[in-house]
Amino acid sequence: MQAPSEGLNHAGLFMFTEVQRSIMSEIIETDVVIIGAGPVGLFAVFELGLLDIRCHLIDILDKPGGQCAELYPEKPIYDIPGFPIITGQGLTDNLLAQAKPFAPTFHLGEMVAGIERLEDNRFRVITDNDKAFIAKAIVIAAGGGSFQPKRPPVPGIDVYEGKSVHYSVRKMEAFRDHDILIVGGGDSALDWTLNLQPLAKSVTLMHRRDAFRAAPDSVNKMRALAEAGQLKLVFGQVTGLEGDDGHMTHAVIVDNDNQEHRLPATRMLPFFGLTMKLGPIAEWGLNLHENLIKVDTEKFETSEPGIFSIGDINWYPGKLKLILSGFHEAALMAQAASRVVNPDKKVLFQYTTSSTSLQKKLGVA
Amino acid sequence: MQAPSEGLNHAGLFMFTEVQRSIMSEIIETDVVIIGAGPVGLFAVFELGLLDIRCHLIDILDKPGGQCAELYPEKPIYDIPGFPIITGQGLTDNLLAQAKPFAPTFHLGEMVAGIERLEDNRFRVITDNDKAFIAKAIVIAAGGGSFQPKRPPVPGIDVYEGKSVHYSVRKMEAFRDHDILIVGGGDSALDWTLNLQPLAKSVTLMHRRDAFRAAPDSVNKMRALAEAGQLKLVFGQVTGLEGDDGHMTHAVIVDNDNQEHRLPATRMLPFFGLTMKLGPIAEWGLNLHENLIKVDTEKFETSEPGIFSIGDINWYPGKLKLILSGFHEAALMAQAASRVVNPDKKVLFQYTTSSTSLQKKLGVA
Repeated sequence: MQAPSEGLNHAGLFMFTEVQRSIMSEIIETDVVIIGAGPVGLFAVFELGLLDIRCHLIDILDKPGGQCAELYPEKPIYDIPGFPIITGQGLTDNLLAQAKPFAPTFHLGEMVAGIERLEDNRFRVITDNDKAFIAKAIVIAAGGGSFQPKRPPVPGIDVYEGKSVHYSVRKMEAFRDHDILIVGGGDSALDWTLNLQPLAKSVTLMHRRDAFRAAPDSVNKMRALAEAGQLKLVFGQVTGLEGDDGHMTHAVIVDNDNQEHRLPATRMLPFFGLTMKLGPIAEWGLNLHENLIKVDTEKFETSEPGIFSIGDINWYPGKLKLILSGFHEAALMAQAASRVVNPDKKVLFQYTTSSTSLQKKLGVA
Repeated sequence: MQAPSEGLNHAGLFMFTEVQRSIMSEIIETDVVIIGAGPVGLFAVFELGLLDIRCHLIDILDKPGGQCAELYPEKPIYDIPGFPIITGQGLTDNLLAQAKPFAPTFHLGEMVAGIERLEDNRFRVITDNDKAFIAKAIVIAAGGGSFQPKRPPVPGIDVYEGKSVHYSVRKMEAFRDHDILIVGGGDSALDWTLNLQPLAKSVTLMHRRDAFRAAPDSVNKMRALAEAGQLKLVFGQVTGLEGDDGHMTHAVIVDNDNQEHRLPATRMLPFFGLTMKLGPIAEWGLNLHENLIKVDTEKFETSEPGIFSIGDINWYPGKLKLILSGFHEAALMAQAASRVVNPDKKVLFQYTTSSTSLQKKLGVA
C-alpha cells in the first residue's frame, strides 16, 4: 500500500500521519469494530453474532454499559420493552449475558482517535492508546458521544495537559516520586488519593469544602492518612499553575479564608466529572444533522459505505433517542453489515425460536 | 351525518351497509383502537399511555399475546433485547404488566369486520361480534394476520358454515339438545366435548386415531364418559355432510376399517388448528406490498392518515419481522398518533428515567 498523505483521503475520511502510524503498537484484524459499548453496542454484538460476525468494542469508559452503567446504574428505567422496571446496571448485565456466546473483545478506557479507509476498502481504526484495528465494517454506537473529563477553570491549564495535568491514570508509574495534587471530592479523587499515596513523593487532596461524595470507607481511610501526616487535605480552589514548557512546579491555590498559597506540585489530577462531546467523530467526514450522524432507515449506514451508526448518536426522520430504537437499528444494521463483511454469503433471515443453527451459535441447542 | 352508500367511501375505506350498521349493539368511544393484542399491540398501549392516550384492543384469539402466547407459549425466544432467554408467555405476561398502568380494554375472540372514516375524520370500527367503536386513530398490529380455523377437506362444507358447522363456540346455548359431532384430537376438541356433553342430545368425538394431544386429565374424563355410554368415540374421517339449506342432519364418515357410516348430527365443530390469513384487512383500501401494509419509517402510518400499522404486518425497506422492531415502531407511531389524537397538544418527548410526570402515570412516583 502506498504511503498516504496527511489529512483527508479521497473518501473524505481522516488519515493518519506517518508519526501516528509509527506508534501503533498492535494491529488487531476483525470483522467489525463497534465504537461504544453501551446497551446498543452490546446488542449489536448479539445481532452481528447471529450472522457469524465477530466484533471488537472500544469505549472511553472503563466498563461496558455506557450512560446506563455510568450515569444511572441504580436508577430504574421503565420503558425497556418487557421490563416494567429495570436498572441501568441490570440491563447492562443482561445484554452482556446475551452477547456472551459471541465472545466480543472489549477495549475499555480508550477513545477512537481516527479512522481511515484502506485501498482494499477495509478500515484502519486507531485509539488514543495507540491500538490499531483493521476491520471490514465500523459501527458507531457512541450514544451521546464521548464522555470526556470536565476541565477545571484554571487559566492556561491546556499547556500542562498530557504532561503534568492528567484526567485519568493510565500507568501509576508515571506518578511515582511526584508531588501530586488531586482535586475533587468524589470516588475517583478519593480512590486515586489512596492508590497513589504509597508511591508519591507527596499527595495533596484538595476539595471545595470538607464534605465528600465518595464511599465512606475511602473517606475514612483518607482522613486517617491525613491525620497521620501522610497526605495533605486542603479546602479551596486552584487558581493558577506555574512551571515551564508544560512541566508544572507549583499550583496556586486560594483557600476558603481567601488566602493564596503556592503549593509544590509536579502532577495534577483534576476529577471534576464527565461531560459528553461528539469528540473526534465530528472530524471523520460523515454527513451530520445537528451534530448527529445522518443514516438511512433501511441499513442505518452513514454517508460512508461500510460505516454504520446506531443508537442515540444517529439521526433520521422521526428519530427518538430511546434504547429500544437502538435495538431495532442494530438488527437492521446487522443484515446490511453482513453483506459488507461477507459479500459472497447469502444472508438467510432466521428466527432464534425455530432455527437450530442459530440455537447452536447461542449454545442452547 | 349523511347516510353513506354501500361499498367504499371517498377515502377508499370500506363502509357499512345500513343492515350492518343497524345491528351494532354497542358503541364505544375511545382515542385509539389497536387491532391485535400480540406483543407489539401490548407495547403500543404502553407507549400511547405515556402520551395520555387510551386504547381498546381487539384480537381474534381468546387471550392477549398473539402468536407468542398461541403458538409458542413455552418455547424459548432468544432475541428479545435484554432477555438471554424468555418464553412467549413470559414475554406476554411482562408486557401486560408494563401496560397495566394504562388500563387497556381487551375485546377478545372478536375480529374487526370493517372500518369507515366518519365526516369528523374519526373512524368507526365494527367487529364480527357486532361491537362498534368510534376512535380518533387506528393501529393495526395484527402480526401475521388473523388466526383463522383450518377448514376440514369436506366437499360442500361451506354451505353449512355459520348454521350447522362452527369453528368456535360463542354461546353454548346454541348447541343445547343437538346431536353434536366434534372432530379433532387436541385440547379444543377435548374441552368442548366435555363442556357440551351435559347439554347436548348426543356428542360424538371423532379423531383420526386413538391418540390425543390434549391434557391427560381431559382425555381420561372423556374416556370415562365414553365407557359409560354418555358419548361416542369414533376413529375415522368426515367425508361428506347431508342436510338442507345449510341445516345438517347427518355426517358421512369413513372409519379406519374403510367402512362408511351415516351419523346423525345437527351441529359439527371441527378443530383442525389455526392458520393465518390477512383477512378483511386486505379489503380496507390500504396500500399493500406483497400482502403487507406499506408504511413510512417516520410515523409508521399507512396510506390512510390516522391509520397506523406496526409489527409483522407492516412493510418498509429493510423490514425484518422481529418483535423488537415492532417495539421501536410502536414508540415512533405513538408520537405521530398523539398529534392525530390531540392535535392541539404539544408532544413533549420525555424519558421515564428522569420525568416525574411519566413516573406518576406509571404509578411509581
